[in-house]
Amino acid sequence: MTPRPATASARSVDEYRDTLAALLAHLGDRPAEQVPVPDALGRTLSADVVSPIDLPVFRNSAMDGYAVRAADVAVTPVTLPVAGVVAAGKPGTAPLPAGAALKVMTGAPMPPGADCVVPVEDVQAGDGRIVVERGRGRGEFVREAGTDVRTGELVARAGTVLAPRHIAALAAVGLATVPVLSRLRAACITTGDELRPAGSALAPGQIYNSNGIALAAALRADGVEVVEIAHSTDDPARFTAVLREATAVADLIFTSGGVSKGDFEVVKDVLTPLGGTFGSVAVQPGGPQGYTVVDGVPVLSFPGNPVSTMVSYAVFARPTVRALAGLPEPESRETTLLTALRSPAGRRQYLRGLLTDDGVEVISGPGSHLIAGMAWADVLVDVPAEVTSLTAGAPVRILTL
Amino acid sequence: MTPRPATASARSVDEYRDTLAALLAHLGDRPAEQVPVPDALGRTLSADVVSPIDLPVFRNSAMDGYAVRAADVAVTPVTLPVAGVVAAGKPGTAPLPAGAALKVMTGAPMPPGADCVVPVEDVQAGDGRIVVERGRGRGEFVREAGTDVRTGELVARAGTVLAPRHIAALAAVGLATVPVLSRLRAACITTGDELRPAGSALAPGQIYNSNGIALAAALRADGVEVVEIAHSTDDPARFTAVLREATAVADLIFTSGGVSKGDFEVVKDVLTPLGGTFGSVAVQPGGPQGYTVVDGVPVLSFPGNPVSTMVSYAVFARPTVRALAGLPEPESRETTLLTALRSPAGRRQYLRGLLTDDGVEVISGPGSHLIAGMAWADVLVDVPAEVTSLTAGAPVRILTL
Repeated sequence: MTPRPATASARSVDEYRDTLAALLAHLGDRPAEQVPVPDALGRTLSADVVSPIDLPVFRNSAMDGYAVRAADVAVTPVTLPVAGVVAAGKPGTAPLPAGAALKVMTGAPMPPGADCVVPVEDVQAGDGRIVVERGRGRGEFVREAGTDVRTGELVARAGTVLAPRHIAALAAVGLATVPVLSRLRAACITTGDELRPAGSALAPGQIYNSNGIALAAALRADGVEVVEIAHSTDDPARFTAVLREATAVADLIFTSGGVSKGDFEVVKDVLTPLGGTFGSVAVQPGGPQGYTVVDGVPVLSFPGNPVSTMVSYAVFARPTVRALAGLPEPESRETTLLTALRSPAGRRQYLRGLLTDDGVEVISGPGSHLIAGMAWADVLVDVPAEVTSLTAGAPVRILTL
Repeated sequence: MTPRPATASARSVDEYRDTLAALLAHLGDRPAEQVPVPDALGRTLSADVVSPIDLPVFRNSAMDGYAVRAADVAVTPVTLPVAGVVAAGKPGTAPLPAGAALKVMTGAPMPPGADCVVPVEDVQAGDGRIVVERGRGRGEFVREAGTDVRTGELVARAGTVLAPRHIAALAAVGLATVPVLSRLRAACITTGDELRPAGSALAPGQIYNSNGIALAAALRADGVEVVEIAHSTDDPARFTAVLREATAVADLIFTSGGVSKGDFEVVKDVLTPLGGTFGSVAVQPGGPQGYTVVDGVPVLSFPGNPVSTMVSYAVFARPTVRALAGLPEPESRETTLLTALRSPAGRRQYLRGLLTDDGVEVISGPGSHLIAGMAWADVLVDVPAEVTSLTAGAPVRILTL
């Protein structure tokens, strides 16, 4: 029998999550990245962004109509000669002659001398003159320069996750690029001789490999760039080679499988001599856990059962990963348990639940292999370690998936 | 003066939104697309997906431990010889000899004859035999084949927007690809001589072009593939050429600008002879609207003020675009107005609002040029056409941006 490496004693969920958060803290220091505004949707601003210009850039008309002096239309109806047309985008606006009107399009620069716009609906036009039927006061239908945002004023704050409305504002002030948090680059390494890729035929004893694909999807949903999804057999030399490839390209590595109490635990066997810490967390699913720093890159090692991998990510890594991406914390709140449940003593249990208007229903069993069952769940039901049973109607915490 | 084409009379917001929904309805008939499961995150299943296999694929151990007959460990402590090891992924499992144990790893096939697993924690092992300290009943720590999902059973329903948990289940049942709704391909065409691209210097009377970038971001957030962001001057020949290029690559085209009552309305002037319908909707911002079908492709024409473009999309097109992408409707609900407001008679008004725990605060003015102000808003405050003022504390509907 392979000698079993020493393991840390069982830790609490909160303690282990905090341990991993500390291990990943330095990833918050990565440099920002300048991205083109059209590509910045969903990215997180790394710095406050201020406007390089006044917006509106110049005093302009809010309507299609006629730029006039308010004093000239104080008494209506009044007839004014139309001295010309100011179109949007045409430079060199001539001043408004005294006692006249200049036709203006929406957004066109206000001619010097004009102080209001009479909308086209309020005039009768013809033969080079207009009859103004309703006057306007000074400033009406005039957009003054800088009234939306002034040069140097904030357009969006550091930490803003850019929505279409932010993209619109950044583009409107003429910014070509914005500084955003660079994406974490993660690699996912699955292990196990029995795993086969999707679409292949299964020999006896083989199963499909889902953990790399699933973990990558979870990471991408949390703003991470997944640079590699790799698989290793249970051969230590092979795993070592795959791991070293990953450390060359990733900021952060996840492994699944090979951390439990079997005879062939490739992840634990390879990483323990490299300084890895392997042990038990008082949680179900996802008890066996490990972490190592290899070539300066944190390696988080989850157990290989598909539900264990996904729950481990959600509970231990996701809050930190999202914080590093500048995304809000996963929602965790109290609701009403709709179905009675039992739970093992001494282990915090995360059951799969379906949220309804009335509370949360536990669906699927506690088994860490029930990955198809997990697809129907939208939350994890968080049962404290000391609780061994809950009746329907009890308050319970949920964690959104 | 250019002769003004006939315009439809002012329509209500609901009527115009329904008109556009009918115009786009045929886009719901587009063929589904098979995408690799790893690339399917966020896509919408176009058909029910059933499992091609039983999961678990075979009867296997839920623990690292020893496969035994429950009857042999009914009285403990009991000593059993260890007849061998069954590792995960090793084919050709030998049957369990009578009165013996076989060491099993988590996930390894149960040897024929064994009916339970004694976890490694519950035995003392050494010298080719184990002392079982706690017995187990038939079936304990055994995962029966098909208990997660059976061949032919539903894994995810048509219409499911694929989250990481669905990707996990689809991968676990060995599917390489899944059928999803193909993305709508949209083109955005901005118009106006005065518009300049981000990063360029502005001559007098020029402004930055933001509508194409902003609309593209809104469309991408709603699951649309933006295949082109183009700009045209106010020259009809140029606009016609840009439009024809777009009809060749897009399912749906958006234009901004050139639909109002000015003298130079390139979009209206070019599209009206092609059968376009242009007119007023009783809404602010976003009153002047138009739609046309060019070469079989629907063209939705929004006014060019940046806020008008974004509100027009949100109010008139977004519900249909999201429905076509299989995404949920934008949230619209009642809340409490925190700030008094005024609104023009006869026009439904959409003001920019910021949602708080107490209700909604109107931020920024009603001006359709206040695009930087809109960045701070997360909802539109929906003021009915017949309402001219509301006091703080009044109930009001909001539409999530």
